[in-house]
Amino acid sequence: MIKDKEIIIIGCGAAGGTAAQFARKTDRKKSITVFEKSKYPQYSKCGLPYAISGIIPKFNNLIEFSSEWFKKSKINLLLDTSVEKIDNDNKIVIAKKGNAIIEKSYCNIIIATGASSSIPSIKGIYENNKLIKNIFTLRTIDDAKNISSSISKGINATIIGAGLIGLEMAESLYKRGTNVTVIEALPNILLKTLDEDMSNIVLHTISNKIKIITNHIVTKIVNKNNKICEVTIKNNDTGEEKNIDTDILVIATGLKSNISLAKNAGCKIGQTGNISVNRKCETSLKNIYAIGDCTEFYDFYSKKPIPIGLGSIAVRQGIAAGINAAGGNYLLPDGLLQTSTSKFFGLEIATVGSNVKDLTVVSGKFNGLSLPHYFPGGKPISIKVFVDQKTGKIISAQGVGDKAAKRIDTFACAILSGMNIETFRKLETAYAPPIAPTLDAEILACDIVSIKLNRKR
Amino acid sequence: MIKDKEIIIIGCGAAGGTAAQFARKTDRKKSITVFEKSKYPQYSKCGLPYAISGIIPKFNNLIEFSSEWFKKSKINLLLDTSVEKIDNDNKIVIAKKGNAIIEKSYCNIIIATGASSSIPSIKGIYENNKLIKNIFTLRTIDDAKNISSSISKGINATIIGAGLIGLEMAESLYKRGTNVTVIEALPNILLKTLDEDMSNIVLHTISNKIKIITNHIVTKIVNKNNKICEVTIKNNDTGEEKNIDTDILVIATGLKSNISLAKNAGCKIGQTGNISVNRKCETSLKNIYAIGDCTEFYDFYSKKPIPIGLGSIAVRQGIAAGINAAGGNYLLPDGLLQTSTSKFFGLEIATVGSNVKDLTVVSGKFNGLSLPHYFPGGKPISIKVFVDQKTGKIISAQGVGDKAAKRIDTFACAILSGMNIETFRKLETAYAPPIAPTLDAEILACDIVSIKLNRKR
Repeated sequence: MIKDKEIIIIGCGAAGGTAAQFARKTDRKKSITVFEKSKYPQYSKCGLPYAISGIIPKFNNLIEFSSEWFKKSKINLLLDTSVEKIDNDNKIVIAKKGNAIIEKSYCNIIIATGASSSIPSIKGIYENNKLIKNIFTLRTIDDAKNISSSISKGINATIIGAGLIGLEMAESLYKRGTNVTVIEALPNILLKTLDEDMSNIVLHTISNKIKIITNHIVTKIVNKNNKICEVTIKNNDTGEEKNIDTDILVIATGLKSNISLAKNAGCKIGQTGNISVNRKCETSLKNIYAIGDCTEFYDFYSKKPIPIGLGSIAVRQGIAAGINAAGGNYLLPDGLLQTSTSKFFGLEIATVGSNVKDLTVVSGKFNGLSLPHYFPGGKPISIKVFVDQKTGKIISAQGVGDKAAKRIDTFACAILSGMNIETFRKLETAYAPPIAPTLDAEILACDIVSIKLNRKR
Repeated sequence: MIKDKEIIIIGCGAAGGTAAQFARKTDRKKSITVFEKSKYPQYSKCGLPYAISGIIPKFNNLIEFSSEWFKKSKINLLLDTSVEKIDNDNKIVIAKKGNAIIEKSYCNIIIATGASSSIPSIKGIYENNKLIKNIFTLRTIDDAKNISSSISKGINATIIGAGLIGLEMAESLYKRGTNVTVIEALPNILLKTLDEDMSNIVLHTISNKIKIITNHIVTKIVNKNNKICEVTIKNNDTGEEKNIDTDILVIATGLKSNISLAKNAGCKIGQTGNISVNRKCETSLKNIYAIGDCTEFYDFYSKKPIPIGLGSIAVRQGIAAGINAAGGNYLLPDGLLQTSTSKFFGLEIATVGSNVKDLTVVSGKFNGLSLPHYFPGGKPISIKVFVDQKTGKIISAQGVGDKAAKRIDTFACAILSGMNIETFRKLETAYAPPIAPTLDAEILACDIVSIKLNRKR
């Protein structure tokens, strides 16, 4: 039995670890305890596909802040410790480490319990409540290690889900020499991230390296000696079924947030099923903060709640909650931009802003080159921008191609400032022949929107 | 004698050519005539160093809009034609093409006469009012061709001026296998572009490839058979002189704008000695517009006039003047951001905003990596940001390193929107391990400013 007071953080992922760090920066003396159910201190989940591919040579490299770091920062990090209950009436947390029960009192608590991979209901996926051998999700460093040790050159790897994570995994398994097939239920890849015309650019680039089957769902797992050997897929339109040889199956169909601790403690759960938080990352209960993938917060433009699913947001929430729980005052912007990026098969993909699709939104797209036409080595870049017809404000943007992410960052800044498309398109972007054209694709996409807006007036 | 009416543009550089293009877009029918004193239609001046180095394989590739293009756009382009006088009382321009005098009436005129290289007064630089053989400036395609045909592997190339153009030339000549020495009068390279701490990063990278001598001026040209063989340089502090073997000398010490036509026509000349224009690119005289390097416009933050010296601004002014002269209505932003970039020896350099240095400005610098620490291949990136202490608004930023230019574009957007540092540092920048860290150098530089600002409060 340990008894103590002050700040408790549950979960040492990007959100929780960052919160601990910033709580410590804000108050050098306060007692800070982090409970982490796994045996790992803060590591990069986003880096997992690159440790599987071998780009990152060792899994341990992913650890961003070691146990020693936490010790040096005088943060009490308890690994292999799962929190069983938050008793907020008595301000006590009850946790379990092996057979030991730990009871710890607190003033402020930060819930950063994250999310788990959601597993679609597929016939034959479980045997005795466990996934069949060689079926994996990718969420933890242990998942990644298991995947890595199960693959060898020439085997057939199937991935369910052609979102960002699914395609990052596809590249990763491709680099390890497997034959990769990605199954996607929607009519195209990346449809939660990009418009179809933009995702087609990605499809075109990657489809000669990996096999992509869209508009199909996986209906059945066929096993041999309790080990996967085939998956049965079904065409959404025709209902036609076929089998795909599969030595290893990776499920990348989304997340299921871990909210039970918060819910049982009495925190309000929002519309998306995640913990509802405000700009300070406070939950509905005083002194309970929540951050990261277990939370929801509203979109900057529509003000509608969205579940958090990005490491960049988790870190920013971690900063806010850490500072606020330690007595500081830190307010996040009035909504999420959801700036997001990934890179696979050499192609950068980036988006920002809410994916609003209605009659009040005008879009413009420009397909160009990253460098002036006369300068060798320019690579394709496509930018699509979405604008509120009434106000002229930029709502969102999508980019595919060279330096897409940093181009999208400029739009992120524009959205955050409430910038009008007419202002943005006059922005002086940096120009030099080996760097960018005088009028960048960012600007030219906006020009197209501007023309459309003027026609509608 | 030709007589006609409507729009006349003097100069077919980036500014003039763009103005013609946008005047035509605005009015499909209006008569548009462009007078260009050289024999070349619109080409990229900024690309010249890369045609000398051979990265751009042919000088002709630099031509962005050919004579055929102008013809197809029904723009009357007169090459080899110099305008002698603008008679604005009678709305007539008098030009000369060979021995022929051309008189042309107009409604609106756009002056885009650009600038010429300024030549420092150095003893022995001229012979019979002409530069000694193998002394060059770099302003026109002919200058570049002359430089290119005068260099061969192993010769000694000296450059006066370690600004952006001087260093672009240095790389170019280095790539052609010459031994390059750059002489700079100021105590460090790039001091008009970067703070000393930032320019030192550049110096460190390039000084093992080329020889850089700062704090020295060139006092004398030594010639042999009327051809340069040495330059004498003098230490600004000690007065000590020494000679440098020089087979070819390139002068990159700045510009002298071509304003006499405008001045004689009665246009107001501003504080910087360039033609004063407003947000529509109108001069003080009704119906006379001026754009590009011959003009001045005010800085976004300080509202003080600055001479135009960037192709990106010239193009934006060209858009404005072209549209306005053709009857449209196009207003440039309320001041210049001067977003600027270059790349040499693999290093990107970029800046935005006005270089204000006084007690009301607080700066923060962050030296980091372009990728998360655990991801291989991250390259150094340094960002320095300057903030108005009273308002908290971002004034300017400097970047050196990987993707510096696109990082600086984000600051350009922030400055244009009048964004406060406290807002910017909460910006969700795009994060993915192969692309950028969760907290980019842009953000971390702002955090440092924020800490400093809070200390001062």
